[in-house]
Amino acid sequence: MYRSHSCGELRASHINKEVTLAGWVQKTRDKGFMIWVDLRDRYGITQLIFDEERTEKVLMEQAKSLGREFVIQVIGTVIERTSKNPKMTTGDVEVLVSKLTILNSSLTPPFTIEDDTDGGEDLRMKYRYLDIRRTPVRENLIFRHKVTMEVRKYLSNEGFIEVETPYLIKSTPEGARDFVVPSRMNKGEFYALPQSPQTFKQLLMVGGMDKYFQIVKCFRDEDLRADRQPEFTQIDCEMAFIEQEDILNIFEGMTRHLLKEINGVEIGEFPRMLYDDAMRLYGNDKPDIRFGMQFGELNDVTQHKDFKVFNDAELVVGIAVPGGNAYSRKEIDKLIKWVKRPQVGALGMIYARCNEDGSYKSSVDKFYDQEDLAKWAEKTNAKAGDLICVLSGETNKVRAQLSALRMELAERLGLRNPKVFAPLWVIDFPLLELDEETGHYHAMHHPFTSPKPGQMELLDTNPGEVKANAYDLVLNGNEIGGGSIRIHDKATQAIMLKHLGFSDEDAKAQFGFLMDAFEYGAPPHGGLAFGLDRLVAILGGQETIRDFIAFPKNNSGRDVMIDAPAPIDDEQLKELSITLDNKI
Amino acid sequence: MYRSHSCGELRASHINKEVTLAGWVQKTRDKGFMIWVDLRDRYGITQLIFDEERTEKVLMEQAKSLGREFVIQVIGTVIERTSKNPKMTTGDVEVLVSKLTILNSSLTPPFTIEDDTDGGEDLRMKYRYLDIRRTPVRENLIFRHKVTMEVRKYLSNEGFIEVETPYLIKSTPEGARDFVVPSRMNKGEFYALPQSPQTFKQLLMVGGMDKYFQIVKCFRDEDLRADRQPEFTQIDCEMAFIEQEDILNIFEGMTRHLLKEINGVEIGEFPRMLYDDAMRLYGNDKPDIRFGMQFGELNDVTQHKDFKVFNDAELVVGIAVPGGNAYSRKEIDKLIKWVKRPQVGALGMIYARCNEDGSYKSSVDKFYDQEDLAKWAEKTNAKAGDLICVLSGETNKVRAQLSALRMELAERLGLRNPKVFAPLWVIDFPLLELDEETGHYHAMHHPFTSPKPGQMELLDTNPGEVKANAYDLVLNGNEIGGGSIRIHDKATQAIMLKHLGFSDEDAKAQFGFLMDAFEYGAPPHGGLAFGLDRLVAILGGQETIRDFIAFPKNNSGRDVMIDAPAPIDDEQLKELSITLDNKI
Repeated sequence: MYRSHSCGELRASHINKEVTLAGWVQKTRDKGFMIWVDLRDRYGITQLIFDEERTEKVLMEQAKSLGREFVIQVIGTVIERTSKNPKMTTGDVEVLVSKLTILNSSLTPPFTIEDDTDGGEDLRMKYRYLDIRRTPVRENLIFRHKVTMEVRKYLSNEGFIEVETPYLIKSTPEGARDFVVPSRMNKGEFYALPQSPQTFKQLLMVGGMDKYFQIVKCFRDEDLRADRQPEFTQIDCEMAFIEQEDILNIFEGMTRHLLKEINGVEIGEFPRMLYDDAMRLYGNDKPDIRFGMQFGELNDVTQHKDFKVFNDAELVVGIAVPGGNAYSRKEIDKLIKWVKRPQVGALGMIYARCNEDGSYKSSVDKFYDQEDLAKWAEKTNAKAGDLICVLSGETNKVRAQLSALRMELAERLGLRNPKVFAPLWVIDFPLLELDEETGHYHAMHHPFTSPKPGQMELLDTNPGEVKANAYDLVLNGNEIGGGSIRIHDKATQAIMLKHLGFSDEDAKAQFGFLMDAFEYGAPPHGGLAFGLDRLVAILGGQETIRDFIAFPKNNSGRDVMIDAPAPIDDEQLKELSITLDNKI
Repeated sequence: MYRSHSCGELRASHINKEVTLAGWVQKTRDKGFMIWVDLRDRYGITQLIFDEERTEKVLMEQAKSLGREFVIQVIGTVIERTSKNPKMTTGDVEVLVSKLTILNSSLTPPFTIEDDTDGGEDLRMKYRYLDIRRTPVRENLIFRHKVTMEVRKYLSNEGFIEVETPYLIKSTPEGARDFVVPSRMNKGEFYALPQSPQTFKQLLMVGGMDKYFQIVKCFRDEDLRADRQPEFTQIDCEMAFIEQEDILNIFEGMTRHLLKEINGVEIGEFPRMLYDDAMRLYGNDKPDIRFGMQFGELNDVTQHKDFKVFNDAELVVGIAVPGGNAYSRKEIDKLIKWVKRPQVGALGMIYARCNEDGSYKSSVDKFYDQEDLAKWAEKTNAKAGDLICVLSGETNKVRAQLSALRMELAERLGLRNPKVFAPLWVIDFPLLELDEETGHYHAMHHPFTSPKPGQMELLDTNPGEVKANAYDLVLNGNEIGGGSIRIHDKATQAIMLKHLGFSDEDAKAQFGFLMDAFEYGAPPHGGLAFGLDRLVAILGGQETIRDFIAFPKNNSGRDVMIDAPAPIDDEQLKELSITLDNKI
């Protein structure tokens, strides 16, 4: 037995007990006649003491030899501390050591194992096993475990069955890219790693499982944007014999359960917003509603004057920045510069100051009088002391630009409090999305999403207007989950695939098994998937998913700790019957 | 809302209530004036009734049109059945239907959706979504869910943290074969899918996670023996600051918890057996101890006579078959034929009948007298009425042969009762195993297993004799889990890899990150992994893991339902910078 207690366990009640502890040397303080060692394990830190008067000389010498991160085992007696440390749970006591065993030594770690480390991101990733020793990283992983346990508890209580679907599946040309896996036993053929278990969960519904869930790894071989991972985890769910309302209720319940059990926050009914409203009011399908600053569309009140920029614009839209009138001219110029950065891409920004006396002062006073500007204020809900920021241009672009500005300003104004949780359902998503490059429509959610009742006809005449039974759950401006009611009959699925540009042959080759399944009594069904990494990060009051993944990959998809991916043996390639192109 | 109740829910207390049900048509019985329909969902079957006197004509016609596996929704009134069916939980009532909606039709399924189906294995796999509608298959999946929930509950309560380790890792030439994944972003390089999260869980211990578990998919690209899958699931566990005894206790506790919660069976302390004893007494490192028939080694009592076969044999060993003296000569000849099959490979079998009168009659009476045979009986624990079966030859081979015979006879004698659970720890496994083909030693468990204290020296002189801190948990003759105490210092790990034939360079390239980690204060640690598929099957009283996997692959590693693996597009190959050899 390596220990009788953990390093987070000892209290005043243990005084005079002999204990055995094991852990890492966090730090040592050597006063010559007295040595203190902070001993750390997952559960806490306990102070060890070696003291000239009470400790054998040879043991004193041994204690002096300890370096940071040495692994030791000690036997000793719990004694009362003379100067207690109320910040430590074990701060009432210390252990007077009578025996010390060095279980393993340690080189000096490349960065400090402290809450605030001196290690940069790259170094911490290379030595992730040392990074995990730091309390904030370890606590994030423990937090993630708690979240998944609560998810499983909730869903299992609701009658959901966790079913493992296969990882070695079939490649589909649809959507983002598949990772593929050459098969040695079936030469020239490949498995693919699932981007999601979508078709399998639908087949489980056809199979009568009724309520399915799975916490499951998914894979996407796409160019990595910041904070995306080639492998990520979903809470994947599906239900049969349900309507959209049933799904929203169940997963609203799950999210409420998590907020309560994990964060101790009680939240009532989640608000719902139409996709079209979200775009109109926030320029975004995942609005952060912890704060206001809703968009005010200004076309009506700006386009009958001589200001050509606005007159030519498809959309003129503004927001009121609370207290923004306090910004100096220089600060506003900086803001204008910010929206003109290529990442945002606005051509310019018009503003109007709302003075305390009820008057306005705009950057386009030449074209708009006080009465006009009062209308701007009305539309944007601006109050005295606010600053109205107005962008104009093509609707989709200008909405995205103003949404970026809104988020940036909220960040600067401290309105994005990570301890406040504002969930929101966004519903009635469009079924299809126009790819402006190719001019083709593709499925906004995925090709198995059903259009809203009675909208099939629109597919031919105005495909962009077809709404789907599709919904996202948004938390603090992040999409944490999304799903839809699925198509469950072969004819509709065939029409949908045709509209998405699949030939009959391709449709059969890729999704034949699913369409066949629909012919044998497929029930109405639908579902939802949560992005676990993101959900955990947000519940944890953070936004970087990497901090909640034990061994994340970097932006090039590399694991710098194990140095993967890596070349493989020629023999291995030969067995797989593949050749690298650059060798040919 | 598609339903007010499930099809397994209605009881006498619901009589006179109006209910809405939805599900599949299990069967219809049409008496002309009366039609009964069995409506099925995950939760049960409810009988619907349509009756000339009480049902509208148009509804009668609609009911007549229903085929097997149609998906329907009905509204109706719960009424008392005239002839109750005590075998069904809903057998007291039926539903007099007032409205019927056909939600989806169905082609005639290719096999019957009954507990005993007429569908063969291949057909059932191709239409696995229909197979899952059958109660035994669905119940197996639900059973698996219950087992994993209990595993998580137990381990979480014991302080274990579930941590997700990566699936896209690095290929190692060690052990069975890796599936590899070409990286598009890192041309010419490959990820590998983990055969187990072994190194990552050890790094988590170096990282101070203290107690880790994960229910995780693992991958092995090897020629598939019957009942092996290229992807399989492990309950993977690791602990720091522990000794073998701690691990055995924790996981014995987990197994006991499962047997109690899942099977309602209370089992006391698990017996432990040395590997050497298991081999000696059962010819097998995973003995089924639900029954006796221990081996008796007979060299001492057989080798000083004139029987050359035994005199030349490295091992002469027998078992007593309870009541086997009742076998006819013909039956015994069949048994001899059985052991001579190539799958078993014995050259012959000697037997001795134990007569009721205390006398013996053997097939080698020419060489052995009654006194000799009495010694055989003593060594094999044979009683009057038994049959002693004796095999001889090279130790390892003959043990395997007799073990096969022992299992076969137990099966025939009905001694392998799947409702009886006999767990067993097998401990002190050898560290290394001689590969007879290459003449090299390889790690019996894996290269990270630590030798028993003080046995390092033997590595040079007698490597086959070195025992490891390695253990298996055996249940009813199946290895359900195995693990070891790991090496946790760089020097020992380096020696081990050297003995396993790794050059310094290879060792560094493959396991450098782990050996580096050992230099920064690695704690003593060890762990264990359970094969979930097998564990679930055995707890479920069965031995075929495929029956407990939602979408298993066949013996060629193919998913015949989705038809994977499959060729991929040339464009996809090009993006990955690989070429298929047969195209060159």
